[in-house]
Amino acid sequence: MREFKIYEPEVLFDMKTGKFTSDKTVSSKKLLKDLVHVFQDEKARLLMNQDQVVYDVDCYFPVKEGKNGGLFWGVTRINPGKVGNEYFMTRGHFHAQIDTAEFYWGIEGEGVLIYMDQDGNSWGEYMRPNSLHYIAGCIAHRVANVGDVPLVFGACWPSDAGHDYDTISKNGFSARLKEENGIPTLVKE
Amino acid sequence: MREFKIYEPEVLFDMKTGKFTSDKTVSSKKLLKDLVHVFQDEKARLLMNQDQVVYDVDCYFPVKEGKNGGLFWGVTRINPGKVGNEYFMTRGHFHAQIDTAEFYWGIEGEGVLIYMDQDGNSWGEYMRPNSLHYIAGCIAHRVANVGDVPLVFGACWPSDAGHDYDTISKNGFSARLKEENGIPTLVKE
Repeated sequence: MREFKIYEPEVLFDMKTGKFTSDKTVSSKKLLKDLVHVFQDEKARLLMNQDQVVYDVDCYFPVKEGKNGGLFWGVTRINPGKVGNEYFMTRGHFHAQIDTAEFYWGIEGEGVLIYMDQDGNSWGEYMRPNSLHYIAGCIAHRVANVGDVPLVFGACWPSDAGHDYDTISKNGFSARLKEENGIPTLVKE
Repeated sequence: MREFKIYEPEVLFDMKTGKFTSDKTVSSKKLLKDLVHVFQDEKARLLMNQDQVVYDVDCYFPVKEGKNGGLFWGVTRINPGKVGNEYFMTRGHFHAQIDTAEFYWGIEGEGVLIYMDQDGNSWGEYMRPNSLHYIAGCIAHRVANVGDVPLVFGACWPSDAGHDYDTISKNGFSARLKEENGIPTLVKE
């Protein structure tokens, strides 16, 4: 044999839509009923259709979670909507290995990436198609959809980063993204 | 103050073209004269215009090279062309921290991603718009343009990966991508 083989790529990812073509991806979704006490107005949440999808995630995990030096790739779609005047958003998390970073990038729709450091300082960054966001280590992050269409964004992160949802679940973020006078406003909690 | 600030994104990256809009990126290019002994037919290379650009790279380094847990983002453009019957390509490298991975993804044009493990086994994978490639740790990688237009691809990799170009510079790859009867063929060295 004088030749090595050239293979077709195993995974396709459409950067214009965030859609995977692969049997190697893993999907999950969060319905409104899964997001107890995530939004400030719990009464408003309970009056809404509990089975509506707030966001879903598709991921490509080419190696085992926890592997040092590896990388994961994913895409999140957040539907448009609000609980009271608070925009639909992801739960948000620190990384379990807290000093690991992540890239997010906007694909479709318009949102706000909400950051919080370990001292409780929050700030936001607008997310739109082509925006590229470096989430430094030790920074909690969540994303809210502020538009009328699904917000789609990509993510790439270290396979040993892990997710610490508990800290946010217990203490929350120090800010909430609300619509005030028609404008997304990052209000101190 | 009852509000936190929402900022404009600092970096834009057009996923359809691979173009950055940012003053935070770093660029470099490789001319044909920089690629001594990279291609097999050194005589053919010396007869060509030495100042033509074989490939260029734009990178976004949000943290210092070597930082554990951080990530880098880049885009490479390889011009169409051949040295003899060997396609224009990148030098190729292992990572200095050898067990670190990398994602490549095709943006424009058509190419072949050439892999080589530490035992000298090589294989290729076609790269096209939307192809997503996981380059596992301990695998050397280089990319060749097999089309008539520039090949553009993105990359995301750990900021402590580093580059080991010396091993490839000394030992080469175990295969070369050549045009044989009009077809890209990964020929054993």
